[in-house]
Amino acid sequence: MTLVLGGARSGKSRHAESLIEALPAPWRYVATAQAYDDEMRARIAEHRGRRGAGWQTVDAPIDLVGAIAGAPAGTPVLVDCLTLWLTNLILAEADIAAARAALAEACRRTTGPLVLVSNEVGLGIVPDNALARRFRDEAGRLHQELADVATHVVFMVAGLPMIVK
Amino acid sequence: MTLVLGGARSGKSRHAESLIEALPAPWRYVATAQAYDDEMRARIAEHRGRRGAGWQTVDAPIDLVGAIAGAPAGTPVLVDCLTLWLTNLILAEADIAAARAALAEACRRTTGPLVLVSNEVGLGIVPDNALARRFRDEAGRLHQELADVATHVVFMVAGLPMIVK
Amino acid sequence: MTLVLGGARSGKSRHAESLIEALPAPWRYVATAQAYDDEMRARIAEHRGRRGAGWQTVDAPIDLVGAIAGAPAGTPVLVDCLTLWLTNLILAEADIAAARAALAEACRRTTGPLVLVSNEVGLGIVPDNALARRFRDEAGRLHQELADVATHVVFMVAGLPMIVK
Repeated sequence: MTLVLGGARSGKSRHAESLIEALPAPWRYVATAQAYDDEMRARIAEHRGRRGAGWQTVDAPIDLVGAIAGAPAGTPVLVDCLTLWLTNLILAEADIAAARAALAEACRRTTGPLVLVSNEVGLGIVPDNALARRFRDEAGRLHQELADVATHVVFMVAGLPMIVK
Repeated sequence: MTLVLGGARSGKSRHAESLIEALPAPWRYVATAQAYDDEMRARIAEHRGRRGAGWQTVDAPIDLVGAIAGAPAGTPVLVDCLTLWLTNLILAEADIAAARAALAEACRRTTGPLVLVSNEVGLGIVPDNALARRFRDEAGRLHQELADVATHVVFMVAGLPMIVK
Repeated sequence: MTLVLGGARSGKSRHAESLIEALPAPWRYVATAQAYDDEMRARIAEHRGRRGAGWQTVDAPIDLVGAIAGAPAGTPVLVDCLTLWLTNLILAEADIAAARAALAEACRRTTGPLVLVSNEVGLGIVPDNALARRFRDEAGRLHQELADVATHVVFMVAGLPMIVK
C-alpha cells in the first residue's frame, strides 16, 4: 500500500497511475469526485481523458471501504482522492473518526496492490473559517492514520516523489 | 537541539514528545499557548491529556528565553510551539527581531536536550491580509535562524519525519 | 539547471544566489518583480541590497525567454522568481501554456549554468477565489514542466535545501 501526498498540481495522480500501470492490467480506478460545478467537471474529464484502456472506473463518493473490499482479489486499486472523499463525508455529516478507522482497517485487509492519493492542505496560514480549519485537521488525522498502515508514503514536489516512508 | 517543523495535524507534537521521552525523566514542557477561545482550550486540553507522568509544564506565552534558561541543567526541554509564541509577540507589539535573536542565543547556550516545535505556514497562496503576510514572513525568518543553530531539523509529513538537517 | 522551490521566507533566493556565486563572476540576475506597491518595493530593495558586486541585473517581468537567451554564453544566470513572472503573465492575459513551453525550451537550449527560483503555493487549503485557484494550478503545471527539464530540483525548508532531484 502506497500513500501519495502532495499539493495542488504536484503530479500526484500521474505518479499514482504510473505506479499502478507498472503492474499487470486490469486496474481498478476508485473515483471519489462528485461534480458540483463546471470547474470540477472539467477536472474530472481531464483526469479520465488521461487514463487509457485497462482501467475500470468505480465511483465511490462515500463508500470507499466497499469499493476497496469489492475489488477482485489481486487487482491493483487506485483511490483518487481521499481529500474529496473527506469533503463528501463532512458534507454528509458522517462520523469521520469511524470512517477513518474503517478505511484504515480495509487497507490493512487488502491483499492486492493499493495506491491512495490525497492533497496536503495543512502547510498554509490558518484559514479564517471554522469549516476549513476542521477540514484540514481531519485531513491531517486521516493522513497520519493511513501513513501508519502504508508500506510506502511519498510527498510529491513538482511532479517528483520524495520518499517519506 | 532539534527543530520540528510541519503543517497542521502532521504529528509534530507527538514526534517531539517521543524524542524527549526517549531520554531520562523528568522532562520540561514549555507551553506557549494562551487560550483565547473554546477551540484553543480544546486543543490545549487534548495536548495535555496526551502527556503522561514525568512531564513538568511551564507556561511561557512571551518569556520563552527565561523558560529555557530557567530549566535545571541537563533537563530535556520541549517548546510547543513557536508559532503561538510568535503570535503572542505580534499581539503584544514586541520587537520580533530582538526576540528572535535572544531565542537563538538561548538555544546556543543551552547544554541540555532541547526540542522546538513550529508550524510551517508559508506554502499556501499569499494571504489577502497584511497581518497574515507579516506573520508568515516572521515565521519564515524565525525558522531559518533557529534551523541555523539546530543540530537536527525535521519536516513532518503525515506523522513521519523527513530529515532536513 | 537547478529549480529552487520553497515557501515564503524559506531562504530560496539566498540559496540560489549561493549556488551562482560559487561560480566565476560576472553573474546575471534576471528580475521578474514589478513594484505595484510599497510592500513590493521594500522587498525588491531588500533583495537588491543583499547582492554584491559581480551581479548584473536585467529586468524581465514578461520576456523571460529573451532574458535567458540573451545572456552571454557561459554566464551563470539566476531567475528570481517564476511566481512573479507567472503573475505578470496572468495580469497581461498572456497564453500561459505557450509561455510555459517556450520557457522550458529556452532552459533546454541554455548551455551556461541556470538557477530558477519559484514559490510553492499549492500546499494550503483550496483558495476561495477562482483567480487564486487558477494561479496555483498554473504554478503547479509550470513547476512540473521545469522540474522535468532541470538536472537538480531542491525544496527549501527553513533555509535548508531538501534534494528532490
